[in-house]
Amino acid sequence: MAELHRIDDPADPRLADFRDLRDVELRKHLESEHGLFLAEGEKVVRRAAEAGFVPRSLLMAPRWVDGLGDVLDATDAPCYVLAEDLAEQVTGFHVHRGALASFERKPLPSVADVLAGARSVLVLEDIVDHTNVGAIFRSGAALGFDAVLLAPRCGDPLYRRAIKVGMGAVFTMPWTRLPDWYAALPALSEAGFTTVALTLADDSTPIESAVAGVDRLALVLGSEGHGLSPRWEQSADRRAIIPMREGIDSLNVAAASAVACYIAMHR
Amino acid sequence: MAELHRIDDPADPRLADFRDLRDVELRKHLESEHGLFLAEGEKVVRRAAEAGFVPRSLLMAPRWVDGLGDVLDATDAPCYVLAEDLAEQVTGFHVHRGALASFERKPLPSVADVLAGARSVLVLEDIVDHTNVGAIFRSGAALGFDAVLLAPRCGDPLYRRAIKVGMGAVFTMPWTRLPDWYAALPALSEAGFTTVALTLADDSTPIESAVAGVDRLALVLGSEGHGLSPRWEQSADRRAIIPMREGIDSLNVAAASAVACYIAMHR
Repeated sequence: MAELHRIDDPADPRLADFRDLRDVELRKHLESEHGLFLAEGEKVVRRAAEAGFVPRSLLMAPRWVDGLGDVLDATDAPCYVLAEDLAEQVTGFHVHRGALASFERKPLPSVADVLAGARSVLVLEDIVDHTNVGAIFRSGAALGFDAVLLAPRCGDPLYRRAIKVGMGAVFTMPWTRLPDWYAALPALSEAGFTTVALTLADDSTPIESAVAGVDRLALVLGSEGHGLSPRWEQSADRRAIIPMREGIDSLNVAAASAVACYIAMHR
Repeated sequence: MAELHRIDDPADPRLADFRDLRDVELRKHLESEHGLFLAEGEKVVRRAAEAGFVPRSLLMAPRWVDGLGDVLDATDAPCYVLAEDLAEQVTGFHVHRGALASFERKPLPSVADVLAGARSVLVLEDIVDHTNVGAIFRSGAALGFDAVLLAPRCGDPLYRRAIKVGMGAVFTMPWTRLPDWYAALPALSEAGFTTVALTLADDSTPIESAVAGVDRLALVLGSEGHGLSPRWEQSADRRAIIPMREGIDSLNVAAASAVACYIAMHR
């Protein structure tokens, strides 16, 4: 059972995991170095615990201690209890639904383990906005995808904002990093997947026909600004487009991925 | 032709339109009272001007003056030129792509004018996140929708963040506010539209069948947190759901709207 510690000083060193959460660069550095991630809000904290992640510590306002009683009962991690205005001084923002928890990351699985048994896989190149990363995990989970592979420079799906937008989909969807950017798509083809890159390239075909009849599908998505790299665009088995109204430049990547997942689910 | 004014003092009173852009509450108040909106980035500023909105003033770093020459040539509004670090002091954030412009709002059209000739209409109840409002406008424009109607408390599509995420779709897509929340959906039915509410309600049918064969369609979307109000859910002609994988609670509203627009476009 978690031990409750009442906190009156926002500078208390035991709160190190929760400090300056709005500083994205600092947090990226700190979280990868210390092997932790942050979950925010009662529902997402519970989902992380239920998915088997081990809490390092929790931070919450007094009124959330009862609501998260089941999570606190099941851990020996310390729980720091402090007033909401003090919590805001520590984290730098208004804490959504009053509860935060710091969890240990797990070692990432191998690509082969993630692909085993998967029929539909999302492959993200350099999606930089954590909101988009979270939204893509959530849409993929809801619309029939079994796993996610990330290029080396894609945004971290365990970053707080990605977890929150994804409603914890990243806890249950198998995912890992691709070790080799250059050979990533040919390696997937060799593993028996048809790689279909979503792009505005001239030789792209409507996605409905590009995925028709495909058994093992790897749907490949590029970054918000410039889309896929030429290497990934050219090394995919097929290039596909979502047919759009004349004169519109594109959908945003989260919307496009939701539509593409829906179409692929019905292939 | 715009007159260029070199600015050295971030407290210069002529910059009032551009002050404290990160303060959402202050901005909402200021922008509605003064009848203005803010466009950010070269592409979006140009799209606002091309759509016929009248600039009040512009603010940019020296290196953007050439790139926006066509916009500056076509207006008599003042253009304030200042170093990027001074611009950040005024606005409170790093200005994306170095250019901002303040435009006059136009009076909103009547609902009847917005509906005239429209076959597919989005109806948004209380979407509060401006990112979602912008994404929904963009998806609707790309995927065959002709107009958008907003409940009285829905987020402002001319808020800076909504414009940016929507890539200016709000400038070209006809839209207005519904004057009467309670009677909104029955009034649309009387006007010849079939109102289809996206919801997780027990009596909802798959959206593919709910929109099949519908001529004039009003697709109704609820807020991020709690979905549609009971009144709107019950006063819609049909309740529809996007079929999802077992155990997943829902898609986020921007993803759901993109998928629903795609399905409706192919009805």
